[in-house]
Amino acid sequence: MPFEVTILGSSSATPTVHRHPSAQVLNINDKLILIDCGEGTQVQLFRYKIRYQRINRIFITHLHGDHFFGLMGFLSTMHLQGRVNPLTVYGPEPLEEIIRMQLKVSETQLRYPLEFKAVSSQESSIVYEDHEIQVESILLRHRIPCTGYLFREKPGLRRLIKHKITEDGVPVAALPSLKHGRDYEDEKGRLFRYLEYTLEPRRSRSYAYCSDTIYHEAIIPQIANVDLLYHEATFAHDILPRAEETFHSTALQAGMIAQKANAGKLLIGHFSARYKDVNVLLKEAQTVFPNTHLALEGERFSTD
Amino acid sequence: MPFEVTILGSSSATPTVHRHPSAQVLNINDKLILIDCGEGTQVQLFRYKIRYQRINRIFITHLHGDHFFGLMGFLSTMHLQGRVNPLTVYGPEPLEEIIRMQLKVSETQLRYPLEFKAVSSQESSIVYEDHEIQVESILLRHRIPCTGYLFREKPGLRRLIKHKITEDGVPVAALPSLKHGRDYEDEKGRLFRYLEYTLEPRRSRSYAYCSDTIYHEAIIPQIANVDLLYHEATFAHDILPRAEETFHSTALQAGMIAQKANAGKLLIGHFSARYKDVNVLLKEAQTVFPNTHLALEGERFSTD
Repeated sequence: MPFEVTILGSSSATPTVHRHPSAQVLNINDKLILIDCGEGTQVQLFRYKIRYQRINRIFITHLHGDHFFGLMGFLSTMHLQGRVNPLTVYGPEPLEEIIRMQLKVSETQLRYPLEFKAVSSQESSIVYEDHEIQVESILLRHRIPCTGYLFREKPGLRRLIKHKITEDGVPVAALPSLKHGRDYEDEKGRLFRYLEYTLEPRRSRSYAYCSDTIYHEAIIPQIANVDLLYHEATFAHDILPRAEETFHSTALQAGMIAQKANAGKLLIGHFSARYKDVNVLLKEAQTVFPNTHLALEGERFSTD
Repeated sequence: MPFEVTILGSSSATPTVHRHPSAQVLNINDKLILIDCGEGTQVQLFRYKIRYQRINRIFITHLHGDHFFGLMGFLSTMHLQGRVNPLTVYGPEPLEEIIRMQLKVSETQLRYPLEFKAVSSQESSIVYEDHEIQVESILLRHRIPCTGYLFREKPGLRRLIKHKITEDGVPVAALPSLKHGRDYEDEKGRLFRYLEYTLEPRRSRSYAYCSDTIYHEAIIPQIANVDLLYHEATFAHDILPRAEETFHSTALQAGMIAQKANAGKLLIGHFSARYKDVNVLLKEAQTVFPNTHLALEGERFSTD
């Protein structure tokens, strides 16, 4: 069962011919989620052969253009390509009016239901959940209201040890109890202990997306022990004042957040165009958090 | 003195990895004008090394996304890259609110003055003029209000025959009169005839941009004898009903408009993604108008 993020854009602010603004696709058990949608995201989805019509939820962090100027084009393309399945967009409240207005002036009646859910930047909340996953907003600190998102699988059921169940002739009626961690006694008084026939549930996997933000330790408790952490690293630490002035982070600071949060793996991105070679940023983050990776276009990361 | 259009996008509706939505740059005597601005236009400007900060006017035809979803990103990038020179956007009236709203939510105070001029789709008018050029709106027929644009150089001054002027010692004071087509008599009573010392003014060059539109002969008088005509050719003529239903034109119809308008050269574009090989559209248009060319990404066309 996949839990994998594909990077569609690594640049901050302005795109270049080879770097694209922020967008990522998260695949959780074959459900696709789009996180941010900078200009050109739809073409990146085509380029990396993402089955984009299977994206049912889009999470937008904030209303700087490099995080949402590709949204209208993507919504339009899904419409033109015959989408009928519902789609939900999560993001700052004014985004709804921006979408509705542009649909109106183009006289577009979307063929699919489009729902918008405003995400508060004042308090963290569960913005979405179903039986498999939960999505929490993360309060970041940027020049304008901005929320990251924490995607977390819900705890699963215990895993059956199939060969033992077959060998001992455990009745089918016992299986739901065993999977939920309860012993089962059949009508003949035979007792089946869940510890004997099941293993621990598969570990719940998690991904935290934190962009854009100044260095902000307040997020650490919420993202503690996250498997995969994406944290922006717009600048190198030698120009920390520039990072602070623009409410961005340095690569070193991204590493510090990952270390303090005890993350499994750190992905850094949102690189300033001033870095032709972003390995300088990678090396800097690795000085404090060795398991750091560059979130470059087309790269895929999982929790393994 | 250049009069040259560079094609940035050739696709209709949805982009692909290799085809971009509508956008063109017109260079008239080193003044740059952007015509339409589909998603990804800024990256196309970088790719073809257009000196985009020299663009001072942007003309938008209509509010279907493939003609303007790249505008906000381009306006933002010019700001972030330090533009201070004024910029004017011409287009349908609701576009101003779409721009202002997105600047507001991102708390962007543009460093350069941005002016917006609403273009009526009810009557053709001169939407811009200076001492060198004049831009008229062209009333097209599409599903939503849509205007093309006709760019025309103003008649220039007569051209001095420099060696004759030197040989005959024509006084400097005579030159303005001669250039304006008037004879000149100096204080000694010497007469200098303009026909002897000047040539006809350089021919006024013109470019008509007609996208998107159903076949619409009403535009022909306005674009008669234009040097360069861009006319959309979304479909081939075998699916004329599809073109009519969507208020688009076929390649054959683009050729017919060029022929009836006595255009110098026809450029066709805005190709449906169904045509993997657009030469079928080129050949079709050439059956009625041989001097037809494909307006493909990166191609440059002049009036020569």
